[in-house]
Order: sequence, then structure tokens, then C-alpha cells
Amino acid sequence: MARIVCLGEIMMRLSAEVGTRLNQTSQLDVFYGGGEANVAVSLANYGHHVQYASKVADNAFGQAVERHLHSSGVATDFLLKGPGRLGTYYVEQGIGQKATKVVYDRQGSVFALMNELEWESTELFAEADVFHVSGITPALSEDWCQLTIQLMQAAKSAGCKVSFDSNYRQTLWTQQAAGEFLQKALPYVDYCSAGHMDAIHLLGIEEKTEVDVTNYYQAMQKLFPNIEVFFSTKRTVHSTSVNELQGNLWIKDQCYTSKNYVIDPIVDRIGGGDAFTGGILHGLLTEMNPQETIEFAAAAAVLKHFIKGDCNQYSEDEVRQFMNSESAKISR
Amino acid sequence: MARIVCLGEIMMRLSAEVGTRLNQTSQLDVFYGGGEANVAVSLANYGHHVQYASKVADNAFGQAVERHLHSSGVATDFLLKGPGRLGTYYVEQGIGQKATKVVYDRQGSVFALMNELEWESTELFAEADVFHVSGITPALSEDWCQLTIQLMQAAKSAGCKVSFDSNYRQTLWTQQAAGEFLQKALPYVDYCSAGHMDAIHLLGIEEKTEVDVTNYYQAMQKLFPNIEVFFSTKRTVHSTSVNELQGNLWIKDQCYTSKNYVIDPIVDRIGGGDAFTGGILHGLLTEMNPQETIEFAAAAAVLKHFIKGDCNQYSEDEVRQFMNSESAKISR
Amino acid sequence: MARIVCLGEIMMRLSAEVGTRLNQTSQLDVFYGGGEANVAVSLANYGHHVQYASKVADNAFGQAVERHLHSSGVATDFLLKGPGRLGTYYVEQGIGQKATKVVYDRQGSVFALMNELEWESTELFAEADVFHVSGITPALSEDWCQLTIQLMQAAKSAGCKVSFDSNYRQTLWTQQAAGEFLQKALPYVDYCSAGHMDAIHLLGIEEKTEVDVTNYYQAMQKLFPNIEVFFSTKRTVHSTSVNELQGNLWIKDQCYTSKNYVIDPIVDRIGGGDAFTGGILHGLLTEMNPQETIEFAAAAAVLKHFIKGDCNQYSEDEVRQFMNSESAKISR
Amino acid sequence: MARIVCLGEIMMRLSAEVGTRLNQTSQLDVFYGGGEANVAVSLANYGHHVQYASKVADNAFGQAVERHLHSSGVATDFLLKGPGRLGTYYVEQGIGQKATKVVYDRQGSVFALMNELEWESTELFAEADVFHVSGITPALSEDWCQLTIQLMQAAKSAGCKVSFDSNYRQTLWTQQAAGEFLQKALPYVDYCSAGHMDAIHLLGIEEKTEVDVTNYYQAMQKLFPNIEVFFSTKRTVHSTSVNELQGNLWIKDQCYTSKNYVIDPIVDRIGGGDAFTGGILHGLLTEMNPQETIEFAAAAAVLKHFIKGDCNQYSEDEVRQFMNSESAKISR
Amino acid sequence: MARIVCLGEIMMRLSAEVGTRLNQTSQLDVFYGGGEANVAVSLANYGHHVQYASKVADNAFGQAVERHLHSSGVATDFLLKGPGRLGTYYVEQGIGQKATKVVYDRQGSVFALMNELEWESTELFAEADVFHVSGITPALSEDWCQLTIQLMQAAKSAGCKVSFDSNYRQTLWTQQAAGEFLQKALPYVDYCSAGHMDAIHLLGIEEKTEVDVTNYYQAMQKLFPNIEVFFSTKRTVHSTSVNELQGNLWIKDQCYTSKNYVIDPIVDRIGGGDAFTGGILHGLLTEMNPQETIEFAAAAAVLKHFIKGDCNQYSEDEVRQFMNSESAKISR
Amino acid sequence: MARIVCLGEIMMRLSAEVGTRLNQTSQLDVFYGGGEANVAVSLANYGHHVQYASKVADNAFGQAVERHLHSSGVATDFLLKGPGRLGTYYVEQGIGQKATKVVYDRQGSVFALMNELEWESTELFAEADVFHVSGITPALSEDWCQLTIQLMQAAKSAGCKVSFDSNYRQTLWTQQAAGEFLQKALPYVDYCSAGHMDAIHLLGIEEKTEVDVTNYYQAMQKLFPNIEVFFSTKRTVHSTSVNELQGNLWIKDQCYTSKNYVIDPIVDRIGGGDAFTGGILHGLLTEMNPQETIEFAAAAAVLKHFIKGDCNQYSEDEVRQFMNSESAKISR
Repeated sequence: MARIVCLGEIMMRLSAEVGTRLNQTSQLDVFYGGGEANVAVSLANYGHHVQYASKVADNAFGQAVERHLHSSGVATDFLLKGPGRLGTYYVEQGIGQKATKVVYDRQGSVFALMNELEWESTELFAEADVFHVSGITPALSEDWCQLTIQLMQAAKSAGCKVSFDSNYRQTLWTQQAAGEFLQKALPYVDYCSAGHMDAIHLLGIEEKTEVDVTNYYQAMQKLFPNIEVFFSTKRTVHSTSVNELQGNLWIKDQCYTSKNYVIDPIVDRIGGGDAFTGGILHGLLTEMNPQETIEFAAAAAVLKHFIKGDCNQYSEDEVRQFMNSESAKISR
Repeated sequence: MARIVCLGEIMMRLSAEVGTRLNQTSQLDVFYGGGEANVAVSLANYGHHVQYASKVADNAFGQAVERHLHSSGVATDFLLKGPGRLGTYYVEQGIGQKATKVVYDRQGSVFALMNELEWESTELFAEADVFHVSGITPALSEDWCQLTIQLMQAAKSAGCKVSFDSNYRQTLWTQQAAGEFLQKALPYVDYCSAGHMDAIHLLGIEEKTEVDVTNYYQAMQKLFPNIEVFFSTKRTVHSTSVNELQGNLWIKDQCYTSKNYVIDPIVDRIGGGDAFTGGILHGLLTEMNPQETIEFAAAAAVLKHFIKGDCNQYSEDEVRQFMNSESAKISR
Repeated sequence: MARIVCLGEIMMRLSAEVGTRLNQTSQLDVFYGGGEANVAVSLANYGHHVQYASKVADNAFGQAVERHLHSSGVATDFLLKGPGRLGTYYVEQGIGQKATKVVYDRQGSVFALMNELEWESTELFAEADVFHVSGITPALSEDWCQLTIQLMQAAKSAGCKVSFDSNYRQTLWTQQAAGEFLQKALPYVDYCSAGHMDAIHLLGIEEKTEVDVTNYYQAMQKLFPNIEVFFSTKRTVHSTSVNELQGNLWIKDQCYTSKNYVIDPIVDRIGGGDAFTGGILHGLLTEMNPQETIEFAAAAAVLKHFIKGDCNQYSEDEVRQFMNSESAKISR
Repeated sequence: MARIVCLGEIMMRLSAEVGTRLNQTSQLDVFYGGGEANVAVSLANYGHHVQYASKVADNAFGQAVERHLHSSGVATDFLLKGPGRLGTYYVEQGIGQKATKVVYDRQGSVFALMNELEWESTELFAEADVFHVSGITPALSEDWCQLTIQLMQAAKSAGCKVSFDSNYRQTLWTQQAAGEFLQKALPYVDYCSAGHMDAIHLLGIEEKTEVDVTNYYQAMQKLFPNIEVFFSTKRTVHSTSVNELQGNLWIKDQCYTSKNYVIDPIVDRIGGGDAFTGGILHGLLTEMNPQETIEFAAAAAVLKHFIKGDCNQYSEDEVRQFMNSESAKISR
Repeated sequence: MARIVCLGEIMMRLSAEVGTRLNQTSQLDVFYGGGEANVAVSLANYGHHVQYASKVADNAFGQAVERHLHSSGVATDFLLKGPGRLGTYYVEQGIGQKATKVVYDRQGSVFALMNELEWESTELFAEADVFHVSGITPALSEDWCQLTIQLMQAAKSAGCKVSFDSNYRQTLWTQQAAGEFLQKALPYVDYCSAGHMDAIHLLGIEEKTEVDVTNYYQAMQKLFPNIEVFFSTKRTVHSTSVNELQGNLWIKDQCYTSKNYVIDPIVDRIGGGDAFTGGILHGLLTEMNPQETIEFAAAAAVLKHFIKGDCNQYSEDEVRQFMNSESAKISR
Repeated sequence: MARIVCLGEIMMRLSAEVGTRLNQTSQLDVFYGGGEANVAVSLANYGHHVQYASKVADNAFGQAVERHLHSSGVATDFLLKGPGRLGTYYVEQGIGQKATKVVYDRQGSVFALMNELEWESTELFAEADVFHVSGITPALSEDWCQLTIQLMQAAKSAGCKVSFDSNYRQTLWTQQAAGEFLQKALPYVDYCSAGHMDAIHLLGIEEKTEVDVTNYYQAMQKLFPNIEVFFSTKRTVHSTSVNELQGNLWIKDQCYTSKNYVIDPIVDRIGGGDAFTGGILHGLLTEMNPQETIEFAAAAAVLKHFIKGDCNQYSEDEVRQFMNSESAKISR
């Protein structure tokens, strides 16, 4: 199996029970997650050797992050600890036509405040096959914009493929800032999860335009011929409880599309995209053919919606079984 | 904002978890609610100055009612306490095709046993804009039939608008008794929530007749020209988990109809009608136009279905956001 | 009412909460159930005098089984206790497109290890009207294959009707072994719950063949003219959360079919078939007409899906009310 | 084993978790219990044939009472059901120096409203060895004062021993009324649980007097020579969490005293006295010697304090094991 | 009753269940509290008109704070809301010899970042009898050191008594900084809760010296003759579960000491000191005599230890009942 | 830090809540533990490189064991998986004078059925400093008696110290069988946890004899001069909730005794001995002096009693802090 380094922020998530508002709840469920950490867990579940690099508070919650990652088999040789706080976010679970609401309390976290790289990059990327990072990291600060580029450069120098999930978050930065970062970062990227928002930032198209995914990937490809693979999910939101989800994968000038899933009802949508990315990377790293890769990734993404917490917790066998199942029987 | 007096019984509600029968449950969730109290909470959420007048047991549960109302900002200057019991009801939550079952244990409550008004009505209605009461109150006893009329008269004398939610409950009184009360009470009413059952009682139509809501309101209007506003929800019950809901508002000889919502899945339907009434009164009191009023009220009613407990717990902003949203995304 | 003897294994069921995987759960819900025990509970709910014969561990869990049965009014004069273990099974609840997963830990249970009958069969069947057993029992061991036949013979000698639910479980035995047992056992059977799998075993038809239920019952009837009644459910699995269910009853050369129910959403499917069998036996024992019988049984089966645990917990009145209801209102 | 008829009210108990006040709790634990019902459960646990006679609401909670009794093997041939309510009480669990607080909501229950005997007394006491009733029953109403005497008379006529637990409750009646009832009832009593309060009522002694239990029993014995056995617990309350408990048994002019137990910490004290009475009756009915009887009863009473709910849930073997144990080891 | 203004930070508290470590818990209980807010709740429970002035995040948790205060009847006319975060702290409950551990995450809260007074002080103190603040507030920042003095000055100008609870927290500031602040602040103080640490800061005594409380108060009094009242608890920690607690009150050159309580076992110690301060202020404001005041305050402090959460939730009657009770019986 | 191999069975533990009997509980808490696994977790917490060798079921519960070990940083290179079951045990938590009761369901587990070594012993012990095993393993079967000796021999050959915890369990084997095994095994042992029972087995002393620990160790030492270190805890059981615990360590002909702890109240005693062994091994491996070693081990053992589950979950720093603390304050 491959060796992968995922790097980014990981946070404590505190969720109220469905049907209870955050301003009234007397109990919160605790999970730990973050875009890159969720991808790390997926890949470790599939048997890869995964390092998760980050920085967490040197308190009970930093320890909890470590336990969380270890429990899924993710290595933490590059998980730094220091004085400060762990970013936190709160989830008011939606249902039916009521949207899920997230309240962030992530400012000033020990990760967000990092202003120079605290890893020795030759160690970090030694023998690594892939470096995975997301667009949330550069969105945390101007320092992180630069540090992210530095990390990509170091990874490339070390002979590592760079995987990037753009993951635009409007509460963290502007579209313009995101666009500028993408222009600088994408020349280092090999595998790119990019969606509609990235088209807006990079191709100068209008927000409301319906863009065919093939045209969009073609245009992106022209701008960044270094990118080997593009991928994204197409999600149709019927309600908080019912979504359709389909995966797209662009590789060697061809677009592959997965089965279209109706997910009904959704237990917990958070981390669905990360499960998809984990599935794509697994397909690429184990040399599945493109169609198999996109089917696997879409199945992984869908499965994530049926469990609580940010992480896909299914093995390769379980994802395949789901991918090939026709219906939902009791398996005795 | 306006000053509103809501008056009626408030009870303790004890609910078993979905999937567990009342005769087997080892745990019950505790809520407090009642038709007028739920309207009071909605209006306080929207920023009005609301007094809730009632009488509760002078024990831990009377205190709990007070805490419940205070937590939502409802004033309790007219919440009396006395020896006796608080009415109680038990809910076995339905789901899918299985109906929700309610077991009442409300007889002999300190409120139901009241046989003369224990408030000084000049104080009660001083500076009040609206007095809200429902048809559950007169259904409690013959005394309460008379006291309800007295309260309406006193409210009118004090220059207060009278809001009345007919809310027919067949376990409390007969259709005939309800009809007789309505004949006496409606001449004092300004805002009237009235549905199909009231048409039966007042217009002498058959129970199974499909009556167009416009014709029905026109006929009611002729009988009671003093009523400025009629409103009601049209609920189509596909199952306990899936309902359609649409609001109707009759004002100045015209009928306004809201968007038709599919609520899927329902978390807790109890109090949906009260949330609707709260929304209508808020629209009337803040001079929204009729279409905005009915859309606001319908949105408020629908939102209630996605949270546990009897009360709508959304602010005006949240109701408006829902009213204008197209789909259910995670709002990060 | 009738006197019925149900005999089979009963196990402890430990279920994780929906959305939580068995390999990560920190809490399990405890239920007790087994095919014949669930039928026993249904019939006791309907007012019959039911004996449940089995053997359980002489420890806290054997006591728990006894309490479980007693709480539903099932008599346990023939519930033996001995040193050993109670069979256990673990349930990872599915939802939406994610199947429910069962992990069995039933080997070596005190019941499965029984190698000679430990009841005096004249006592066991004294005054009994019906003896009910399922195909799970002979699947436990070769000894149990023989003991099951012995029990059927003894029941017939005692003038008892024999009810048999084939209930094929592929994790317990092969199709061939099941087929051989059926050939020996069915000549003693009066009431037979048999489905598609039994057709495969007995009629030599292909697994993928779509067989019309009427043809299938006719063919079965020819082979075993002693069988008075065949019955089965037709379940269409749209997802773990949504199934359609319809009952079929073959009696005196005619096939009766119930209303087709959409069950949406399912709370807990386990025991649905047993609730159906309980309904059929109740119809036969109280001399309902065939159409009423199949409607009653189908309604009972559907209701089971809306409560947690293996047992149907509805009285005859409640099943009838559901059978006749048009929609799911709050019944206040 | 013996045949015993216990008769009295049984209620639903709703308890908040330790550390949470009733006026703030959002969840209540459900138990069912009553003085005589708890004695019934104890005796059924010890293997006796016990009938529990009472009247409960014909709703889900009446069914719950039935399930509760059945689960412990208590027969309910004389458990009547009728329209009305089940008495309820609420418990705010104390701890340390904070007392436990009980809020009763038992007025107007279907049992309390009974004004003539609804059982055929020849059936009720047919073949019964003991009839057990407590002083809570006559305290419910003047009707029940008379009905209790009638029941005692009928029991005596049927050749039954009468067991009576005085169980004075100041919230239900005055000391004078209790004293008058005792004067009328005690002539029919064979086994009498009587404490300090009864001495006050009957012997005209001062409430604050320290009375030696032997003197007290002697004086009682002189007044009612028909009483064969007196028994009571001596409880020293160090705090809600720590009590000392010792049992006294007066039989054939001699007083037997059990080991003195320190109970630390107490989980749930309610029902401790009923567990003691159950132990005494078991000793008497199985012809233990007096010292063994009082030791068994005291051990049973103490054990009850370590489990939640009103009922002693230990078998004779478990009580004996506890009675003979020296310390609390893990029994593996 | 009196009018009191309490001002300070209020935080969300997230507690793991006893026996579960923060780094492993999957669930947290939610409470809201802060030194001055807890005093506010106590005083509102006793019937005073209390305003709580603070600043909270304009999100779900700011709303939750508001609901929390309202539910206890505390007015929030001066509770500001603004963008930012609510301070948070996490509690790992100790038990026995294992200490309770608190992890703070309060930096950068919207309250701590306040750098000028955002209330109009003439409005804030209009008609107020007492202004209560604690030493936690000046410890938050240098700005708050100055703002606290300004508030005290404004309160004095408005004719308000100033109550100050020194409440030294070593994680927030140094002893020296605390000492300097005290020198500046105490000249404005009328009622002062001061303990051993304050003696160290102000009187220059050694940390390990055993100081008699009377001598200590006398010395303090000489330095600050303006202070009318000193009070403090003497707590002897036998373990996390068992403490002794006694109250001291210095008034008019005399020291009054309460009963010494053994608290065993403690449910939740947090807020015990605030409950004591609330009791003292209530005594002073209702003109209890000094001995009654200190007994009331000590009883209130002890009661707090038996409930979860930061706030004393007992009425004056309940505190008095506890103060006068001899033992812990079930009060039926 | 050192490299340690721990080998033994690990089981699923299912615990009912305190105050609820196993035969009535509707929920069970899930933990994973076993003597050697608990030692492994302790040592990994202290920073050692620990391998846990065992065999578990290749199902969800085998995965759960893996997650459990990984979360504490224990390596599982030698954790085999195969078809079969994971041993299970059930705990009814005692409290006060009520003992904790354990119901085992461990027979036929995939580990217990192992009949030849499935590890390559040169790999297993490569570079290992210590091999730790307990007397539970040979008690599982005659095969395991022999395999345990083989493992000890292989470890010695590999230059590994052998640590052995005798841990006699009377439900698994007889005293005679245990004694015979000890005679064969102890010649290979370097570090030996041995208590009173071992003295009985080996020294032929009477079960009731009070043996001074020093004399006992001296006698053991004479028999097995190869053993460098003996250690054991002395536990005085006042009740299930209160124990005293003291550690003894015999090294180089001298006996070192720790502080005597009163543990009050105990949350969960299971695993206390394993935490002690973990502490001793840590002291030996990090070259603490003997007194420090025994104090550290005793403190670790005591701390374990305050958390739920089988494992000590404290770091070296936390154990040292506890070891040096005088009392239990809130550490803010």
C-alpha cells in the first residue's frame, strides 16, 4: 500500500441531537474531524500507511485527537502539540426541510496561529507517495497561504504527488483571495478536487451559470496541464434528509461518472466529500481503472452519510459490497 | 412591539422515545406546553411583550412551568399558583403509518377546577393590544364556558382585540356544546382561527362535505361580520412522518394562500397549529401585508415540526430565512 | 382462546444505535427474541394461553428471558434452565441504502447443545391446540433435525395442529440440508409459512425464477396434501428504511391477498415475519374468515416495524384499529 | 410454597436523576410500585404464588402495571381495570445531607375512588394462606377505611391469616383518624408491622418519647392478643446516603433482633420497608426460626437499597448469600 | 426586595460524566455559569430584582445564556451581544481521591476583549442597591483592571453598595498583579468576600502561615475601614467527594461562624462559593441578624454541592428548611 | 523507552449501570479488556513501545479490540484474527455492601481454542525487553498450559525478561492445576506478581493462615531464586465502594511498601491489579528506585479505581501528580 501525508487542521465537533436547538440543548455529542484528517482516516481504513501532520493543543483535547487518529490506524509522528486551544465547531443537526447549522469557534487555534513550518520537510515527505492538503488551510491566515505553497513545493521536490481539495469556505476568506491562492497553488497539484466554485474563481464564469462538468474540466486542464486528475461530486439537495449524489472523475481527457445515488434518509452529511476524496485517492493509488475508481469513491461518499461523525468508517470490502449491492437486506 | 395576553391551561407533557410504547418505556422526556402558552412563546420569540395568564400547582411542576415561560421571555405576572395538580399528558410518538397516541391525565387540574376569575380584569388587560384564548379553555368545564365569555367581554371593554383559536377536542366536549359556545363567543372575536370542524358546528354542513375554504370563510363572515381575520392550515396527512401543510388567511374579503410545504420527516407535530397562530398574530401586529403574513405563519408552522417539544423556538429572522430558502444546505 | 405451545431458541439481542458501527459503539441496547418466542408473545398479546418451551442458561440472562416472556403473559412451565450460555446476536442497524448487519454469537448455546428431548411430550402437548416451531431449530444441529421431527410426531399424536415457519437461514445450514429436512417434516405440518426459498428446495425450481405465489402454493399443496394452510409475506425492499409488504394466504385451494403496505420509515424490521405468523395463527384460531385473517396478519406485521425489539407489542384491538385506519393522525 | 393475596394501590413513579431538581429535569425514569405490590413482588421472587388485587386505569399505564407485575411472576387475576387515572408520584432523589423529596399526584385515582368492593371475596381469598394490606389503603378515603375492614373480615372468614403494615403517611390522614382505624382493624390482624408512630396512636404515648421496642411490643400485645407477630425496622438516618438498619421481630413474647447494617451509599431507599415485610412473611411462611427470619428480612431490606425502583429484585438464594457474606468482593 | 446589578463573564461549561476522562468522552453535559452570574441566579431565586450585565456572543450560545438567566428570573437589560466567541470551559469530574480537572478555553471571548465600558453607567446603576463584581473580571486583561475600578466608582457615585468577591485564579494573573488591583479596588468596596489568598496579597503574610480568621479580618479592616462586611468559607477538603464547610462573617468588629457541615458525597462543587456569597447578600439585604445570615449562607453553599451545574437552585424556604433540618428523611 | 510484548486473551465487557440488575437492564456499556491487554495499555500510556499479541474474532468485535488498543498506542502486529467468537463477560456493578457480580461467557473463544502457537516466536520476541503474560492464559486449556511454557522458554531464549502475573481464577481451573503449572512456569520468570493464593499453591500453607508478606516472599525466593522481583497489592475490602490498597515490592531481599490508600468511593475496580503491574514494570524499566517504583505502582492502581473500564488511562505525569498530591482540589 501507499504512504500518504495529510496535513491540515482538526477540530472538536460538538453536535446537538436531531430535534434539539443548540441554544437549548443540555448535552452535546463529541466527534473529532477535519477535511484532511477525514481523508487520512479513510485511507488508513483501506490499509495505507498514513501520516497526519497538524498541530493541536497540549491538553485533553489534543490527546483526544491523537486517540481518535490512532484508533483508525493513522500515524501521528508529525502531530505537534503546543500551548493554546483546539478549534471547535458546533452542529445543530437539520432534518427534512430544516438546514443543518454550524457555529464555528475556530479562531485563534494553535494550528491557525502557526506562522512558520514546524516540521522538517525532508522528514515529513520522506518516502511519501502523496501529500494531501485542502483549501481550508490557506484560508486560515495569510501565513498559511504561503506555508501551504511552501509545503506543496517541498512535497514536489521530495518526489511526492500533491493532492488538493479546494473546499471553498466563504466564512473563512473571500472568493478573490481564494482565486489568487488557487492561481499560485494549482501549478503544484497533481490530483485536484474542484467544483463549481473553483470554476468561478479561476475561469471567470458567472456564479449562476450551469456549467457542464466536462467543459469545465477541459478548461481547467488547459490552464493547469500539470493536473492529472480532476474529481468532484454532484450533489442534488432535495432536503437535509434526502440528497442525490454522483461522482465525476476527469482523467486523461475523459470524464467518468458514477452511478447516481439517492441518499434517504441522511444521518450525518458532514465528511461526505472527504470520504469521496479518500475513495478517489485509494482508486488512484491501487490502480483501479477510472470507472471503478469513481464508483468506489461515490459508494464511499454515500456510505459516510449513514453514520455519525466526520469520518468514513468502512473498509475497502465494505465499500465494495455496498457498491455492488442491489438493495438493503438484513445480512445475517 | 405589541402587548399580548394569552390565557389558558398549560400542562406537563411526558413523551416516550420513538419506537417505544408507553406501556413499556422506562424513561419519559419532559416538556411543558398548551395551546395558548405555545402561542405566547412564539410571540415572545418574535420580540413582543407577552403575558401568560393561567393557574398552576404550587409545587415543583408549577415552578417548572414558570421557568419554561421565563426562558422564552414570556412574563408571568398573571400566572397564579395554588394547591392542586398540574394537568399532564403522555405521548407515544408515532412514525410512518403508526399514529401518535396521546393519553391525557388532565382532569382535576388546578386550572380546570377554577370556577371564578381570579385575576382583576382591569389589570389583566391594561395596555394590552391582543387577548388570545382557545376553544380548549371553555371545553374544560361549564364554568370555564362562562368565564371565557367574561374574559372576552372584559378584553373588548379594555380596548383589546380578541384572538380565538377554536381548536376543537372531541375528548373534552361534544360538537353540540362546542357549537353553542361558538355562537356566544364569536361575536366578541376579531381574529379567528377556524377550520373544517367549526364549519360543521356553525354552518350546519355535513362532516364529510368537501368545502372550499373561500366559500366557508365567506359564510362565516356573514354570520360574524365583526371578525376581521380568519385563518387556518390545510394539512394533508400522508403518514405520521410526512404531511403537507398550507396556510390560508381571509382578510378584507380576500383569501391568501401560502406556499404548500411537504414536511418530511416530521420530528414532532404537536404545537404546529399554535406556531401557525403565533405567526399570523405576528404578521397582523407588525403590519405585514396579507401574503407575507400567511407565508410567515406557514413557515413558522412547518419549522415547528422539526424540533421536539410543543413550542416554536425560532426567531423572526430564522423564520424568514426558512421562508426564503430554496433548499436545505449546511449553513457554515 | 386457544392453547399454543411454541418451541425454539431465544437469544439476547444487543443493538447499536442507528448511525453507530458495532466496532465503535460504547453502548448496546438489550432485547430478547427468537422466531418462536416472538410468535408466542404475539399470541399472548391476543389473549391466548401460550407456553414457550426452550432451554436457557441458568444465569442472569436466563432469568431475563423469563421476565421478558412473563411480562407479555407467556407461560414458562416448559422453559428449562441449565448450565451453559445463552445465544447472543449483535445488530448494526442499517438505514437508507445501508443494510442492517447481524453478527451472530449463538454457537454452543445451552439450547443448541441439547441432544435429546428434555420435556415429557405428553405433558408438553397436553390440551394444546397448536404446536409452533420454525426451521431455525432443525438448522442448529443434526440432533435438532431429529428432535424436531420427534416433537412434530408427538404433537400430532397428542391431537395438536402443527404450525411450521420454514425461515431458512443460510448461515446455519445448506439449502440441501434444509430441503432434506423439509421433505421429512412437512408431512406432519398443518399450517405452513413458506416462501420462495422453500419452493427452491422442494420443487426443484431455479433460484432466480419469478414464481407466481398461487402456482407455487398449488405445487406445494400437491406434494403435501396434509397442509391446510400456506402463508407468506411478499416484501419489496426499496431500502432499509422503506419496504412494501403484502400478505398471502392459501387456504382451501384459494389464495387471499392483503392490502399492500408501504412501510416508511422502518424503525426495526426484525421480527416482522414472526408478527405475521402470529397474526395468521390468531386468525385461524379465532375463526376469522380468510380475507380478515390475511389483513389482520399483514397489519400486525407492518405495525411491528414501528417499534424497537423483536416482538409485536400490540393488542388485537390496536391491530384492528391500524388495519382499518386511513391515515396517521394524532389520536387525542 | 404459600398462596398470598396482596391488595392496595400501585402507582407510577417518575424519578429525576440524582443531582437534578424536579423543576428543571428534562427526563424522568419510570418505575411502578406501591407498598403491597412491592411485598407481592418480593414474595413472588421467593417462589410463592402471589395474587395482586388492585384497580388500575384501562390505559397504557394500567397495562404497564400488569407487565411490571407479570415480569416478576405476580398473578393478576384480581387486577381490575377501569376508566380513570393511575396515581402518580414524582421523586427528587436526595443525596448526602439533601433529603429526597416526593411530590404526590395520586388524588382521584381509579383505585382511590373505589367505593365498594369490586371483587367477589370468596374468590379473592379462595385457598389463600395470607392476605396482606397496608395502612395506606384506609388512608385513601373513608370508604376505603370501611372496605379495608370488610376485606380483613372476609379474609379471616376464609381462613386466611391477615398481615398488616401500618405505614402511616401524614399527607394522607391525621394521626387521630389513623388511630381510630387501627383500633378497629387490629383485632383482625395476625402479622403486624408496626413502628413508633403506631405506639403514639394506640398507646397514647408522646411523640418524642424514646420507647424500647420490647416494651412497646409488649404493650401492643396486651391490647391485641390476637396478633401473633410484630415486626419493624429501626433505621438510623446519618444522611440520605448513609443509614443504619436493623430488624426487630416479636414472636411468642420474645424479641429477636438482626445484625445492624450500615448502608453506604444508598442508591434508592424507597421500598426498603416493603422488602423487609416481604422477608418476614417469607420467613413465617417457610417456617424459618425467628432469628433466621429477622436476619433474612433485614438482609432483604438492605439489599433493596442498592437497586433502583421500588421492588426488591433478589431471589432467596441471593438474599441468603448476602446475609452470610462478610465483605463485598467481585464474585467471578 | 432589593435591586442588584451583577457584572462579569459568563461561560459555557461542558462536563464529562464522572468516571470518564475528557480525552475519551463521547458526550458532554452543557451548563452556563460564571461567578457573578451564579450570584445573580441565587439572588433572583430569593426574590430580588437582579440585572446581569455582561457581553456574550451573538450566536446560539449567547441566546442560551439569555435563556439560562431568564429561566431563573434574572433580567438581562444589560446583557450585550456582539460578534465573537463565548468563553468555554471543560470539566473532568473528580471523585474520591481523584481531583476535578478544569480545562479553560476562555481566551479571546467577546467579554474578555471588551476595552471600554459599553453600558451607560447612569442607566446601569439607576435605582440599584448593590453592585456585585468579582476578582475574575479584572484578571481578564489590563483593560478590565481599569474598567472594573471605573464601574466601582460609578456604582458608588450612584449611591450603590459595592460587593466584591476576590476569587483569585492563578491561571489568569499573578499574585502581584492581583495584589496591586486589590489595593486600588478595595477602597470602593462595602461587602468583601476575602480569603487566605487575599491576606497573602495585602498583608504581606507568608503563604503557608495558618492565620486565624478573626485576626486576619481585623488587619484587613484596619487597612480598609470602608469595608462593612467581610465573609468567607472555610473548606476542609477530605477528598473530592467529602468536604467540610463552615462560613465566617465579620461585621461591626465581630466574627460570626456558622454550623460546620460535612458534605458527603459531593455531586458538583463548582459554584459553592457563589451560592455562599448569594446567601450573605440576601441576609444583608433582608436585614437578617448576623448569625442568621451566616447560617443561611452556609446552608445555601452546602445545598449547591448536591446539584449539577454552577447555580444554586433553591428558594429561601428550601434553604431555611435545610438549615433547620436535623437529618435527611424522605419528605412525603 | 522499552519494548514489551504482552500476550493473553482480551474480551468484550458489557456492564449494566450501577443500581440496575443484569436480568433487568435494557442497556449495557461496552468496554474491552483483559489482564495482559490492560498492562499493555498502561505501558503504552507511559511511552513504551508495546506489542499486544492475541487472537480475536475476524468480525466487528475483533476490529473493536484493534481500535481500542490503537487508541492507546498499543501496536497490534501480533494480533491475529480468525473465524470464531470473542470472549465476553457481563458485569453487574456492586455498590456499598452489595458485591459486584461477573457473568462470564468466554468459553469457546477463538483465543481459548488455539492449540498451537500461531506466531513465529523469533519475530514475536525480536528486540523485546520484556514478555508479560498472566496465569489466566494457562487456565484456559491444557493446550494453553503447554503453550504458555513454550512462550516463556522462547522469550528467555530471545534474551527477554519474563513478567508473570499469577492472577488465580477459581472459575477457570483448580488450585491443584494452578499449583502444578506454577511449578513448571516459575523457573522461567523474572518479575512475578504473586499473592496469597500462590503461597497456598506453592508453599503448601493453609488457606486461612495469615502470612506476613516478607516471610512469604522469602520462602518463594528460596524456591525460585531466578525471580528478581516479587510484587503484590494488599487490598482491604470495607465494602464494594470503599477499599484500602497498599503495594508491596520485594527486590534484592528487601520488601518495600507504599503509602496505604483509602479509595472512597470506587467507580470501577476491575483492572486495578493490572494498573499496579503496569506501574511496577514501568518503574523497573525506567530504573526508578524500589520505593519510587512501589509508590508509582500503587498510585497508578488507585487512580484506576476512579474511571470506568478496565484500563488505566493516566500518563506518567498524571500518576506522579496524584502520588504527590495531598488532597483533592479543583485544579483550575
